[in-house]
Amino acid sequence: MTSLTLALDVMGGDHGPHVTVPAAMQALRLYPHLKLILVGDENQITPLLSECGASYRSRITIKHTEECVAMDERPAVALRCKKQSSMRLALESVKEAEADACVSAGNTGALMAMSKVVLKTLPGVDRPALVTCLPTVNHQPLYLLDLGANVSCDADILFQFAVMGSVLCEVVTKQSHPKVALLNVGSEECKGNDQVQQAAQLLQHTPQINYQGYIEGNEIYTGKVDVIVCDGFIGNITLKTSEGIARLLVHQLKQGLKQGFFVRLLAKLLAPSISRVLRQMNPDHYNGASLIGLRGIVVKSHGNADEAAYLQAISLAVTEVTRRLPEQIKLRLESILLDINS
Amino acid sequence: MTSLTLALDVMGGDHGPHVTVPAAMQALRLYPHLKLILVGDENQITPLLSECGASYRSRITIKHTEECVAMDERPAVALRCKKQSSMRLALESVKEAEADACVSAGNTGALMAMSKVVLKTLPGVDRPALVTCLPTVNHQPLYLLDLGANVSCDADILFQFAVMGSVLCEVVTKQSHPKVALLNVGSEECKGNDQVQQAAQLLQHTPQINYQGYIEGNEIYTGKVDVIVCDGFIGNITLKTSEGIARLLVHQLKQGLKQGFFVRLLAKLLAPSISRVLRQMNPDHYNGASLIGLRGIVVKSHGNADEAAYLQAISLAVTEVTRRLPEQIKLRLESILLDINS
Repeated sequence: MTSLTLALDVMGGDHGPHVTVPAAMQALRLYPHLKLILVGDENQITPLLSECGASYRSRITIKHTEECVAMDERPAVALRCKKQSSMRLALESVKEAEADACVSAGNTGALMAMSKVVLKTLPGVDRPALVTCLPTVNHQPLYLLDLGANVSCDADILFQFAVMGSVLCEVVTKQSHPKVALLNVGSEECKGNDQVQQAAQLLQHTPQINYQGYIEGNEIYTGKVDVIVCDGFIGNITLKTSEGIARLLVHQLKQGLKQGFFVRLLAKLLAPSISRVLRQMNPDHYNGASLIGLRGIVVKSHGNADEAAYLQAISLAVTEVTRRLPEQIKLRLESILLDINS
Repeated sequence: MTSLTLALDVMGGDHGPHVTVPAAMQALRLYPHLKLILVGDENQITPLLSECGASYRSRITIKHTEECVAMDERPAVALRCKKQSSMRLALESVKEAEADACVSAGNTGALMAMSKVVLKTLPGVDRPALVTCLPTVNHQPLYLLDLGANVSCDADILFQFAVMGSVLCEVVTKQSHPKVALLNVGSEECKGNDQVQQAAQLLQHTPQINYQGYIEGNEIYTGKVDVIVCDGFIGNITLKTSEGIARLLVHQLKQGLKQGFFVRLLAKLLAPSISRVLRQMNPDHYNGASLIGLRGIVVKSHGNADEAAYLQAISLAVTEVTRRLPEQIKLRLESILLDINS
């Protein structure tokens, strides 16, 4: 297998190099053909590599910079003032073809803004979207986008997200004509706000997309459709609410099951199964969302990812590079968008 | 106790009189001081009252109409063309002081539009909000609004919702200075869309409201705050997503627990506890949302409510009348809004 190189923004995220560097070393063990560019403060990175054997060390390049993007920094400010930040330099590595993909646990808004400027969007795409794959009742993977990269979206942007989501699902799952729906407050045509209603109009007139109409919040995880589209505000709140309710349920189960010795015992015996389900639903453990619509691969890790979770984000990047995802998406997207615009 | 009268839109909802009339009879048994105006088609209602004893029958008035609002009817159309509908006549009963409150399981958008026109909003309130009380981890009730009556809201409307939610919580729970938050995609000041950021500005300058800043989706059910404000699009999807994820978890628990005889047995023994938790989280069983900000009480039942669920919505209306909710909200709201506007 030919080697592949990832650029890691090791300073990004709540924990910085203390999580990202050990996760990077694990990734080197896991993928023998992997090379890494660790972008960040050399003085913080080098000590963390002290136990790294020579064979691993030879597959690591450090790109030194002391500048980094804060988690609460305004995207516009980061874009203007942080041209030497670890995030920006990691993205530049992809642009310069030094790396095949970039992984960052940093500020989502800044990552989105910088990705757009550094890597540029694919033809026909105005804004990249943050997308993740979620579990459903019937084990069909569900692609939900946007997850927070774009808090306000007009109908055209929602339409582009639908096309990108459909193509991503097709490319990754090898499923032809994935079912696409718009998240809305009701299933009737008259429901929703202007953006959603207009996006529905556009999708109804696009035979290349297998548009299924509106889907409501209670149907997201039923596996009824393969791709669900919404703006980043809704997507973010939907994903985090799912996490919150999962926690509440487990908490209530534990509380509700404290009533007697027998019930307590039963609950204890079932705890691993309950935890497994929670883990499956928890974005912390279901880590790695992709910024799609760009001329390069950018994977966003959860900001507070631990070592195992960050490793998952790296693995997602490896998979996307191996599958040549952006080239495939680009080809498919171009053919659909050209078709639509012609 | 003095008698109280409710007007029921018996034609509203997915099941109409077959659910609403039996639920009404149960309510008469439950509340000896209750009188009911059943608004709808006499020919459908009367047969359903055949087993109703004379003492109950004497507490029922039928207001006959054959017109009703369809569940998928556009609110503007319902408002213009359905002036003799059961929904409208039930609201008129409240306006004419024949009834103390109205209950409907009909079309939310139409109910909201008609309520506003027939009952009018309180001074300082531009739009009524649909609000419900949800369970949290620490058993503190949580008021979430808007739940779908207003799909698009500017900052002023969100601000009014925050004031109304705070007052409602204060009046119902007797808690002074309830904690109010805006639902957003992050807790940092720079996060969110324009509407939410501007509403935050307004709330920060309103000492009468105990504003706590932004809250994220994963914190909704933690009990961290008492009132959460968002537009109706977000609120609807948040509530329905919660329902969906609860169903998925229970499904996955059941599936995950099918692996062996022993685990299956355990799961079966725990099923009632799991079901109880699910019921608590399920809007179908947690029935009755209030339209607040009006000069009268309007309770919205879930469209597909069964008899027990519809009875809960009636009970909520009884509670609100007994506590003289609109008068109390009006007084408190006026004092805050006048204070703010002066």
